[in-house]
Amino acid sequence: MPDSRPIAVFDSGIGGLTVLNELARQLPFESFCYLGDTARLPYGTKSPEVIVQYSLRAAQFLQDRVRPKALVVACNTSSTYALEALRLRFPTLPIVGVIEPTAREACQRTNNGKILVLATESTIQGQSFQAAIQHSLPSAHVICQPATVLVAMAEEGWHTGDVVCSAIRHYVKTALSNFNADMRISQQFFLPDTVVLGCTHFPILRQAFSEVFGPEVALVGSAEPTAQHVKNLLHKQELQAPTTAKAQFEFCVTDSPERFARVANHFLCKPILGGAIQSVDL
Amino acid sequence: MPDSRPIAVFDSGIGGLTVLNELARQLPFESFCYLGDTARLPYGTKSPEVIVQYSLRAAQFLQDRVRPKALVVACNTSSTYALEALRLRFPTLPIVGVIEPTAREACQRTNNGKILVLATESTIQGQSFQAAIQHSLPSAHVICQPATVLVAMAEEGWHTGDVVCSAIRHYVKTALSNFNADMRISQQFFLPDTVVLGCTHFPILRQAFSEVFGPEVALVGSAEPTAQHVKNLLHKQELQAPTTAKAQFEFCVTDSPERFARVANHFLCKPILGGAIQSVDL
Repeated sequence: MPDSRPIAVFDSGIGGLTVLNELARQLPFESFCYLGDTARLPYGTKSPEVIVQYSLRAAQFLQDRVRPKALVVACNTSSTYALEALRLRFPTLPIVGVIEPTAREACQRTNNGKILVLATESTIQGQSFQAAIQHSLPSAHVICQPATVLVAMAEEGWHTGDVVCSAIRHYVKTALSNFNADMRISQQFFLPDTVVLGCTHFPILRQAFSEVFGPEVALVGSAEPTAQHVKNLLHKQELQAPTTAKAQFEFCVTDSPERFARVANHFLCKPILGGAIQSVDL
Repeated sequence: MPDSRPIAVFDSGIGGLTVLNELARQLPFESFCYLGDTARLPYGTKSPEVIVQYSLRAAQFLQDRVRPKALVVACNTSSTYALEALRLRFPTLPIVGVIEPTAREACQRTNNGKILVLATESTIQGQSFQAAIQHSLPSAHVICQPATVLVAMAEEGWHTGDVVCSAIRHYVKTALSNFNADMRISQQFFLPDTVVLGCTHFPILRQAFSEVFGPEVALVGSAEPTAQHVKNLLHKQELQAPTTAKAQFEFCVTDSPERFARVANHFLCKPILGGAIQSVDL
């Protein structure tokens, strides 16, 4: 029996749209309700307690509004801290976070086992990537670097350019020199062949990352592996929409729909953009 | 009769501490209760409705908690949108915003009448600086440039360095070329001799601003003129604390006190740092 209920997607703001975009591409018959908690973004500098509290409220809102067949937590920070609390609160709802699929993909892509993770301060502090990568590939060497300013740059719509590239270089240098100082070894030791873009905003800066790291380094974002994971889950649990369905998109934001529309415009594919944007209170 | 009630100071996060620092310096016998709405910062990208709503809640909290003799809105974005609503809600409480004192100071400092204002997106959209500067100095030429990423850099504790300087240069270039394109004139036309640091975070980046603009350009922040304004107000309304009083400092934040303490540490003077930091819910 096909299941035409929508999939709920939640993020602190606009970054999760990179995941929604890929979900829509891989699952063309599915409908989506996206909630961006734009009034309270960014989550990446908030404490675990506040992140859990806001994530639960967001999920409750989506549950009440559309009774989804699955919930995608399209925010690395929320996925780091709130998955367990969400699964306790909604025990029958399949809930997918972005950390595990992304970490698995990074482990598949690396050849030398050296992985650099760039993410928000809170995601790094929660050590979720470290744990998930080492679960998939116990021999991996992982360096985790908070890169908070890149979130603001992505929100500003700066895809590339000197300022973005120099900020990325600054974070990479900091990460490598901290690591080498800790290990009392030379600068050459840790040369990652894989970089995890561990915040759903960072794919917006993909061009700058490519310029800084060059073609030899694999850039792993959350969108593709998470969408693939959701696709497998729908298949396994027989939750797919009928192939006759016309995909619908609905957007809810906690602050100005105008700003959301303007920023979202930069990086959403066409079919999605027709969806209505509503301002809601959580 | 001296008045030993505290002064309440409110900001979206840590930026207002630059104002508190100067208040404490100019008013050594006064006590302060500072509220940083760190769970919901930044305000600078939020809509006017949300900014007003959060500001009213913050002021109500401070009113209930300490019954202050005055309220300082130490946030440019909140001062842009919420002053009128706050004065309506608390008609007997003297309420001071940062925009007018800062704008007056800029008008006093400029010689050529050309003033560049850097602030958050919301502050610029509200045109508060434009209006206040032109009220004080009708002949002034004002260019206003949103500079959102600088807020994240200040929060990150980047006082100076290549990344900050190149971000400032990027914003200045954008401002001047937009202006000149609008006016169809050459690049040389608008050379400001005064730059308003129109967000209470920006004084944290003062060293970078000095490097970019050089010694010929006056940098006007909100801290000194606002503290001076509060001092005059206390004097006029006979609200000063007794000169025998020992200043007390209390801090309330809506998110992690640990992060607040760590970031605040960079730029608070010693006597203030002894104040207790409490986590509160608005």
